[in-house]
Amino acid sequence: MDTQEFNSESGLTHECGIFGAIGNENWPINSEIAQIICIGLQALQHRGQESTGMVVSEGTNDFHVQKGMGLVKHVFTSDSITKLKGKIGIGHNRYSTSAKSEQVNCQPFVVYSMHGALAVAHNGELVNKGALRKQVLGRGVGLSTQSDSELITQALCLIPPDGEVNGPDWPARIRHLMQLAPLSFSLCIMLKDRIYAVRDPYGNRPLCLGKIMATNTDQIDGGGDMEKNSEGWVVSSESCAFLPIMKYFREVLPGEIVEMTKYGVKTIDVVPPPIDKSLAFCIFEYVYFARPNSIFEGQEVYGVRVRCGMQLATEHPVEADMVGSVPESGNAAAFGYSKQSGIPLGELLTKNTYVGRTFIQPSNRLRQINVALKFSPILHNVKGKRIILIDDSIVRGNTVGPIIRLLRRAGAREVHIRVASPPLKYPCFMGINIPTREELIANKLKDTKEFARNVDADSIEYLSVEGLKKAVQKEINPESKIGHCTACLTGEYPGGIPDELSW
Amino acid sequence: MDTQEFNSESGLTHECGIFGAIGNENWPINSEIAQIICIGLQALQHRGQESTGMVVSEGTNDFHVQKGMGLVKHVFTSDSITKLKGKIGIGHNRYSTSAKSEQVNCQPFVVYSMHGALAVAHNGELVNKGALRKQVLGRGVGLSTQSDSELITQALCLIPPDGEVNGPDWPARIRHLMQLAPLSFSLCIMLKDRIYAVRDPYGNRPLCLGKIMATNTDQIDGGGDMEKNSEGWVVSSESCAFLPIMKYFREVLPGEIVEMTKYGVKTIDVVPPPIDKSLAFCIFEYVYFARPNSIFEGQEVYGVRVRCGMQLATEHPVEADMVGSVPESGNAAAFGYSKQSGIPLGELLTKNTYVGRTFIQPSNRLRQINVALKFSPILHNVKGKRIILIDDSIVRGNTVGPIIRLLRRAGAREVHIRVASPPLKYPCFMGINIPTREELIANKLKDTKEFARNVDADSIEYLSVEGLKKAVQKEINPESKIGHCTACLTGEYPGGIPDELSW
Amino acid sequence: MDTQEFNSESGLTHECGIFGAIGNENWPINSEIAQIICIGLQALQHRGQESTGMVVSEGTNDFHVQKGMGLVKHVFTSDSITKLKGKIGIGHNRYSTSAKSEQVNCQPFVVYSMHGALAVAHNGELVNKGALRKQVLGRGVGLSTQSDSELITQALCLIPPDGEVNGPDWPARIRHLMQLAPLSFSLCIMLKDRIYAVRDPYGNRPLCLGKIMATNTDQIDGGGDMEKNSEGWVVSSESCAFLPIMKYFREVLPGEIVEMTKYGVKTIDVVPPPIDKSLAFCIFEYVYFARPNSIFEGQEVYGVRVRCGMQLATEHPVEADMVGSVPESGNAAAFGYSKQSGIPLGELLTKNTYVGRTFIQPSNRLRQINVALKFSPILHNVKGKRIILIDDSIVRGNTVGPIIRLLRRAGAREVHIRVASPPLKYPCFMGINIPTREELIANKLKDTKEFARNVDADSIEYLSVEGLKKAVQKEINPESKIGHCTACLTGEYPGGIPDELSW
Amino acid sequence: MDTQEFNSESGLTHECGIFGAIGNENWPINSEIAQIICIGLQALQHRGQESTGMVVSEGTNDFHVQKGMGLVKHVFTSDSITKLKGKIGIGHNRYSTSAKSEQVNCQPFVVYSMHGALAVAHNGELVNKGALRKQVLGRGVGLSTQSDSELITQALCLIPPDGEVNGPDWPARIRHLMQLAPLSFSLCIMLKDRIYAVRDPYGNRPLCLGKIMATNTDQIDGGGDMEKNSEGWVVSSESCAFLPIMKYFREVLPGEIVEMTKYGVKTIDVVPPPIDKSLAFCIFEYVYFARPNSIFEGQEVYGVRVRCGMQLATEHPVEADMVGSVPESGNAAAFGYSKQSGIPLGELLTKNTYVGRTFIQPSNRLRQINVALKFSPILHNVKGKRIILIDDSIVRGNTVGPIIRLLRRAGAREVHIRVASPPLKYPCFMGINIPTREELIANKLKDTKEFARNVDADSIEYLSVEGLKKAVQKEINPESKIGHCTACLTGEYPGGIPDELSW
Repeated sequence: MDTQEFNSESGLTHECGIFGAIGNENWPINSEIAQIICIGLQALQHRGQESTGMVVSEGTNDFHVQKGMGLVKHVFTSDSITKLKGKIGIGHNRYSTSAKSEQVNCQPFVVYSMHGALAVAHNGELVNKGALRKQVLGRGVGLSTQSDSELITQALCLIPPDGEVNGPDWPARIRHLMQLAPLSFSLCIMLKDRIYAVRDPYGNRPLCLGKIMATNTDQIDGGGDMEKNSEGWVVSSESCAFLPIMKYFREVLPGEIVEMTKYGVKTIDVVPPPIDKSLAFCIFEYVYFARPNSIFEGQEVYGVRVRCGMQLATEHPVEADMVGSVPESGNAAAFGYSKQSGIPLGELLTKNTYVGRTFIQPSNRLRQINVALKFSPILHNVKGKRIILIDDSIVRGNTVGPIIRLLRRAGAREVHIRVASPPLKYPCFMGINIPTREELIANKLKDTKEFARNVDADSIEYLSVEGLKKAVQKEINPESKIGHCTACLTGEYPGGIPDELSW
Repeated sequence: MDTQEFNSESGLTHECGIFGAIGNENWPINSEIAQIICIGLQALQHRGQESTGMVVSEGTNDFHVQKGMGLVKHVFTSDSITKLKGKIGIGHNRYSTSAKSEQVNCQPFVVYSMHGALAVAHNGELVNKGALRKQVLGRGVGLSTQSDSELITQALCLIPPDGEVNGPDWPARIRHLMQLAPLSFSLCIMLKDRIYAVRDPYGNRPLCLGKIMATNTDQIDGGGDMEKNSEGWVVSSESCAFLPIMKYFREVLPGEIVEMTKYGVKTIDVVPPPIDKSLAFCIFEYVYFARPNSIFEGQEVYGVRVRCGMQLATEHPVEADMVGSVPESGNAAAFGYSKQSGIPLGELLTKNTYVGRTFIQPSNRLRQINVALKFSPILHNVKGKRIILIDDSIVRGNTVGPIIRLLRRAGAREVHIRVASPPLKYPCFMGINIPTREELIANKLKDTKEFARNVDADSIEYLSVEGLKKAVQKEINPESKIGHCTACLTGEYPGGIPDELSW
Repeated sequence: MDTQEFNSESGLTHECGIFGAIGNENWPINSEIAQIICIGLQALQHRGQESTGMVVSEGTNDFHVQKGMGLVKHVFTSDSITKLKGKIGIGHNRYSTSAKSEQVNCQPFVVYSMHGALAVAHNGELVNKGALRKQVLGRGVGLSTQSDSELITQALCLIPPDGEVNGPDWPARIRHLMQLAPLSFSLCIMLKDRIYAVRDPYGNRPLCLGKIMATNTDQIDGGGDMEKNSEGWVVSSESCAFLPIMKYFREVLPGEIVEMTKYGVKTIDVVPPPIDKSLAFCIFEYVYFARPNSIFEGQEVYGVRVRCGMQLATEHPVEADMVGSVPESGNAAAFGYSKQSGIPLGELLTKNTYVGRTFIQPSNRLRQINVALKFSPILHNVKGKRIILIDDSIVRGNTVGPIIRLLRRAGAREVHIRVASPPLKYPCFMGINIPTREELIANKLKDTKEFARNVDADSIEYLSVEGLKKAVQKEINPESKIGHCTACLTGEYPGGIPDELSW
Repeated sequence: MDTQEFNSESGLTHECGIFGAIGNENWPINSEIAQIICIGLQALQHRGQESTGMVVSEGTNDFHVQKGMGLVKHVFTSDSITKLKGKIGIGHNRYSTSAKSEQVNCQPFVVYSMHGALAVAHNGELVNKGALRKQVLGRGVGLSTQSDSELITQALCLIPPDGEVNGPDWPARIRHLMQLAPLSFSLCIMLKDRIYAVRDPYGNRPLCLGKIMATNTDQIDGGGDMEKNSEGWVVSSESCAFLPIMKYFREVLPGEIVEMTKYGVKTIDVVPPPIDKSLAFCIFEYVYFARPNSIFEGQEVYGVRVRCGMQLATEHPVEADMVGSVPESGNAAAFGYSKQSGIPLGELLTKNTYVGRTFIQPSNRLRQINVALKFSPILHNVKGKRIILIDDSIVRGNTVGPIIRLLRRAGAREVHIRVASPPLKYPCFMGINIPTREELIANKLKDTKEFARNVDADSIEYLSVEGLKKAVQKEINPESKIGHCTACLTGEYPGGIPDELSW
C-alpha cells in the first residue's frame, strides 16, 4: 500500500510518534534541545501529520509549550525554536483517530500538579479507556478533552483512594497506571529535570533510546571516543530519527520504566504483562508503518520486508518478465521477490513528486485520474511484458484496479499482484485507525480469484500469516522473549476483546 | 541529481511548463476546460513550482484569469475552478530565473489589444531580449515587468513600422516575432476562439499535442472508436501530462505554428532555423528535467536514461556487490548500469516522504543533517558491501559528500560514484537557471580524482559527451532532422554567444 | 481617557465580558442560540478584544465549542455559527491580564465531569487564587493553565474532603466555591440544560438579566404582549448588549445564584458578603469601562458621567470660550461641564476612523505622530480660543502632552484640562489590569501644578473622590443596599489587601 | 450619512487618495521616505480602503513597488518599509468603482518606458475613457487592465502620431494628455528624480502641497526658522495628511502642472478648462468625503459644514428640546444648527467602537439589528424629549428608519430629521461611486412628507442647493476663480454628459 495513502481516504493511520531529549553536562551552552527535538519529530513525521507539539523546560516548572495543526516544518519556525529554551523536552506528532481533530487535542499534554509541572506524550490507545475515565471522573476531576493523553496525565496526578502513592514518587504512580491500564502505550513523561520513557507491559508500541553525539560533525568523523563526546540522551518511537547526530542505543523493554536525567539513563523497573499473557509487539510496524531503516528487536525493518518478499515468492511463484513495486511502499518486498525468484527487478511505475488534486466533479473517472496523477507507467519496463507488481499490503483495495488499468493501457501482457502481508480483516483497538469492517476489501470478496477478476488482474496472492511471522521472527535472537500482535489479521487480541468493542 | 534539489540551493531550475486546451463540439456542456488544464499543470508541476496561472474564455474577449504564488493544488480550489468558465484556456507553471519572484510576473500574461484580448504562456528565454525590449520601448510602449512574456505579448500587439502586419493576422505577427527573436521559446498564444501552439525554429524547448479523450472512462475502456469520441485538443510542454484522459498525438515541430480551434489542429507554417544553423533541442530535458514517462522525438525518456546507464557501465566499469541510485533521479540509469554490468540492483538509500527543515544555526554539520533528513541508508544493502551509486547529474556537488558519509557510517566497504551525464561547465541562456561558473563543481576541481578524494569516494566517473549523444540519438528515426543543444556541457551555443553575455 | 487607548500601551484593561442565553418553548425551531450570543458578545467587545469563545449544547453533554484569538466578528463566521447548534449557550470576550495570551487560555472553559459536561465563563479575578489553587492541586488534580476559569471549574467538580457535596447538586458546589473564594467574579456556569448566573457576594463585577423578545421585529413594534412573546432569557455583563431584540429585566444581585432554564429564571440563593464587609461594586465601571447606555443600579451610565462633569464644573470652574472632550471618552462629562458652567460645547478634536500605525523608528517624535494619527484639532473651535478639554480619566498621562501641543499649534489661546474622575493611584486585584505604580502619572508628579507645567497646560484639575461618589450615588434608590469599590483611588480594598500582594 | 456607511451596502465611495513625497538636501541619511508616505496614506485612508500601494526610488529607474489588498496598516509592515528604500515616492489608496477588485488593479501603476521608469497614481475618473482607450489600443499597445491609471500611463508613454512629443519632455506629454482627457483627475506622476503633481483643468478633484518639517519635533517646537529646516516636499489629496510633521503650503491650481524635485516645487504650466467651461470642484468633498480638518480653497471643511448646519436651521427651523447628530458624520452641522437655533446640543446616539457583524439569516429584523450594533440611544438626552437629528447627507435612506425606531423606543417624543445637503439624484462620472438611480431614496419618494411618513419621522427636511452653495462659497476670497460641480444634485455636468452614459 502506498505510504502516501494515508493522506487520502483509503489507508491506515497511526496515532502518534513521540520523541524526547535531555542534554547532559556536555550539552553546549546556548544551544536549545528544541533543535534536536525538531529533527527527531521530522524524522517521525510519517507517524502523524495532523498536528505536532513540543514542551521544553529550562529546569523549572515553567514549561514552554508550542503546539499546532500541520507538519513539523510548518508549525515550528526558527523564531519559535529560539523561544523554546531549555535542555530537556519532549515532542509529539499526531494523527487523530477520532473525527474531531482540534488544536485542543494536540500533544504533549501539560498540567501543573501538586508535585510540579508534568508533560505527557503518548503513542497507542488505552484498551480500557472507558473504565479508567470513569475512575478519574469519579474522583472529582473534570476532563477537558476525550484524549487518552489527558486521561493518563490526570490519572498520574491523582492520589489513589488508599493514599498509597501520595508523594512525588512518579515511578510508583506510573506502575499504578500500568495496573489500571496495561495496554497500549509508549510514553514520554517529562518533569522539570527528567523524562520517564515507558513502554506498556505487552510491548505493543515501539520505543527506543539513543545518544546525542558530539554536535561538531568533524569530531564524530574524526573518530575519537564518541561515547565520551555524547551530549545527552534521546528517546524515540523509531530509531530512524537518530542519524546522523544521534546514535541508536537500545530498545526500551516491554513494561520498562526508564528514567532519563542529565546523569544518564537508568532502568527503574520492568513490569511484566499479566499472567498468562504474552508479549504483543504490533506486527504491522514491520509490514507498513515503520521507516525501512528503523530497528526493532535487533533487526532492520528493510531486511524483514525483503524476507517477506522472498517468502511471498516461495508461497506464490509465477512466471513473468519483470518484478516491480508500487513505489515506494513495496520496494523492499519486490527486491526480495526478485532475489528469490530470479525474475529481474525494474521500475514499473514512477511516482510524481508533487501529489496533486483532482478538480473534476466526482464521477467514475475520478479515482482513475487521482491514481494517474500519482503514478505513471514506465513503458520501457511494461510494454509487451508479463509483470509482477508487489505491494506491502492492501486495505480498501481502491487503487489496485486503476493501477492495473494504467499498466494494461501501457501494454502489459500480464499483471500479477503479490501482497507482502496477509489480508487485513479485523479492527485494532491499540492505536491504529483501521477502516470499518465493511470497507476492508478482504471482507468484501469471496476469495482472491474474485478479487483478481474484479480488478482485471491475472492473479492476486497474499503472504500467509505463518509466512509473515516466519519472516519477522527468523533472525530475532531466539533467547529473547518475543511475541507479536496479529489481531488485525487473525482476530486474536492480546488482552482479550475489550468490553466496549464497537467495531 | 535529486529532483527535489531545486527546492534547495543547489539544483538547476527550469523556467516553465505550459499547457493549453480547447474543447470541440463533443465537449460536455457545463464542464469547464479549467479542470483539464489543472490536471495538465499538476502533471507539469516539476517544471516550475514558484507560481502558476490560468486564463480561460467563454468565447469572448472577457478572459477569466487566475494566478498566484505556489503550487497548482494550492492556488486553484474547487471554487475558483468553477469560476474559470469556458472551453478554451491556457496555463503556466513558473520557476523564476530572476531574483524577483513577484505575483506580477506570473504567467500567462494577458492584454487587451486593438484586435481583441490576447494571452501568452511562454517556456524558454529570449537570447536577444535586450534588443527586442529596446525596439518595443522605442515604439512608445511602457513595459510593466521584466518578463519575456510581457515583452513577447507587446511585440505581438505592435504594428511594425512598415505597417506590414496591421490587421488581426496573428500568424503574420508570430512569424514577425520569430524573425525578431528566433531563440528560445515554446508558446501558447490564446485568442478568444483559438490557441496558437508555437515552437522556436531551433526546437530548443519541447512542445507536443494531444487529444482529450471521452470523459467517460468506461467508454475509453470499452474500446470503441476513441477518435470519434475525442472532446478536444491539448498542447503541453511534456506528454507526461496526458494520461489517463488525454492521448499523445505528436510533437509540434521546430518552427511550427499550429492553430488549435474547435474544428481541430492545423499547421499554419513551419519556419526553419536561420541558414547554417541546425536544430538544437535541449539535451538536458532527457538527462534531468523531463518526467521519465514523457516522449520526445518518438522515444520515452526512461529508455534514454537506461541507455545512458548502460553506456556509463561500458565507459566506466568497476567491480562491486550492488548498484543503486540516488532516489529517484538516478533510478533509470542505475537500472541500465545494472543490466549492462550484471551487478545486482538494490536500494541503497530511502528517501523520506516529508522533506524537512533544519532548525539548527548554520554550522558545519548543517548540510550533513539536511541530507540525512532527506536520505537514509538501507543497512541491508550497504553494510559490508562494495557499492556503486548512480545519479543523473552533478551540479554544485554539495550533497555527494554527505551522502557518501552516510553510506560509509552505514558500513559500505567501497563507494563508487557514477554520473549518467557529462560535467556541467557552461551557462545556459535559453531558459535554464544554472549556478554561476564558480559554483559548478566541474569548474572547481582539477579532475575526478581530486573530486573523489574531496568527498571520500573510492572513484567518481562521468558519462562522456559522445556517450550521452549516442544514448540519446541511437533510436531516433534516422530520417528525421535532429540536433541537440549541448551548450552547458560543451560551450557550443546554437545561435552563437549572445552579445549581452554576462555570466 | 480615550477608549481606544487599551489597544495601545497606555490604558486600563478589563479581563472579560460574559454572556449567556437559553431559549424557551417559544424559541424558533432551526434557529441557533449562537446568533444571539454573537450579537451579545459583539456588544460587549469593549470588555475584551484579545480572544473570544462560545459553548453551546443541543441539550446533551456533547458541548460544541469554538474559541479563537481576535474579535468576535473575525473568530466567528456564518459557517461556524451554523455548526454551533443548540438553544443553550454561553460566551466570553477576554482581555488577558497576564503576559501570556494564548489560545489555551480562551474561555469558556469546558470539562466533562462525573455529573456531565460543564462550561464556565468568568469575569473578575480571584483575590485568593493562590490558596484555592493549592487546595485543588492538593486533591490530586492537574491544572493545565494559570487561568482562574479552569481553577473555578475544577473546584466546582471536586468532591469536598468531607464528602458533603458529592452529587450533582451544583448550587451547593457554587455556594462552596463562594466560601472558598468570595471575591471577585461574575460567572456563567453552563450545564446541558441550564445556566447558573452568579455574582460574587460583594457584587464587585456587574451582571444582569434580560429577555429575548419576539424574533419578528414587527411583532415587537406592533406592541402586543411582549412578555407573552418572549423566546428565552439572556444574562450579560452589561445591558448595552440587549437592544434591539432583547430587553433588560434586572440585575443579578450581589451573592445571588440565578438558575436559567427553559422554564424561566429562578433565584436559588443569595449569599451575603462576609460579616463586617459591605458591598463593593467597581466604581470604575461607571467612570470608564461600561458603555454609556448600560444600566447599573437602576441608572444609565451616561447620566452618571454627565453628573461627574457637572460636579467637576462646580469643583474646578475656569473662564473659557469652549468646552470639549477627548472623543469619545469624555463626551458625557463635557456635556455636563458645559451644562453646569454655561460655556458652549463644541468639538475640539476629530478622531480618525482608521487608527493607524507609525512606521517610524522610535524617536522623540513617535508619540506625537501617534497621537496626531488619531486626533486632529478643529481650527474652527480652537483657533484663538480659550478651551477646556475634558477626559474621563488619566492613567499614564502619556497622551495629554501631545494633545495639548496639537491644540496649541492649532492656535488655542489657553488649554485647561479637566478630568472627570480622581487620580488613579493603587493597584486592582479584582480583574482590572492597572499599570505599575511607577507608571501611573498620579504617583509620578507632586501635584497638578507640576503636571500642568510638564505638559504645557494652563491648568489641570481632577474630580474629588467625594464628588465622584456623590455623582454616582445621588440617584440610586436610597433604600437599596449600596457600596462601591474605590480601591484604585483610595487604597481601601473591600476584602482587605491580599496576602500575595505583589504590586 | 455615517462615514462608516461605505463599508456597508449603502454609502458613497471614493475612488482614491494619492500622496507623494520627495526629500531635499536636508533629508536625513538612512531615513526612508516610505515612512512619510505611510503616514500620509493612513491619514487618507478614508478615501479608499480596498487596496493600497507605494512606489519609491533611490534615484534610479529601478523602482521599488509594494501593493496589496486591505488597509495601509495591514499591507505595510516595519519590515516592508525598510525594504522600500529611497527619498522619492508616491502612494495610493483605492476604493474600486468597478465590481472587479483585484490586486492587479492596485495603484500606483508602474512601467518602464523608453525614457526611464514611470509611476502614476490617480484620483478621479476619465469621462472620455472609452475614446482614449481606443486611441491607445489603435497605436498597437496592449492594455493589461481596465484601469484608468494604466490607460493614462500608456498614453503618457506613447509618441503622438505627428511625433511632436518624442523625447523625454514629460510636461509636453502631460499637456497632451490634458487635451485628450480633460476631466477628471488629480495625478502624481513619478520619474526617478521628480514628481509631477497635476490637477485637471476643471479642478474637479482636490490636490495640495506641503512641506516636510524638521524630523526632530523639538526643533519644530523650539520655533526657529522652520522654513530653513524643511526636509522636502509632499503632495496630497487632502491637507489632513500633513500634521504634525508636514505643513500645509498651498493647493495645486486647476490645470496646474507642478514639478517637485529635490531643489523645490515649480509651476511648469497652468492649463485652463475648455473655453465656455468653468471650474468644477466637487462640492461633495465639502459635504461628505473630506476629513473635517482638511483645507480647500482657503477654508477648513469643518467651518463650511457648520455653516451648512446654520443655513439648515434658517431654512428649516423646528421647535425642540435637543439637537444632535448621527455620529460622527453630522457633528459639525449639528453644532451649526444648535448655534443658529439656540437649541441645546447633545449626544443622542453613541457609536460602538467595534462595528460588528450580524450572523442572523437575512430577515426583516436584520437591518434593525445592524443599526443597533452600531448605534445606541442615550436615554439621558432622548427620553421624553423632542429631538432634532442632523446628518450630512442621505443616500439610500436605509438606516434612517431603524435609527428613528431606536430613538422612539428610547422614549423620544418627537424626532425631526434635518439633512445638511440637498437630495442626491444623479450619477457621477468623475470618480464617485453613486448607487443606481433607483436606489437613491430621493428618486424613490414623492416628497419629504412621504419620506417622513415611511420612516415614522415627525419631519424630514434637506438643505437647498442654493443654501449649500452659499455655505460653501461665503468665505472664499471673492477674487479667486471659483466654480463647483453639483452634478449629482442638479444634473448639470461640467463637461456635458458623456457619450457613454449608461446610468
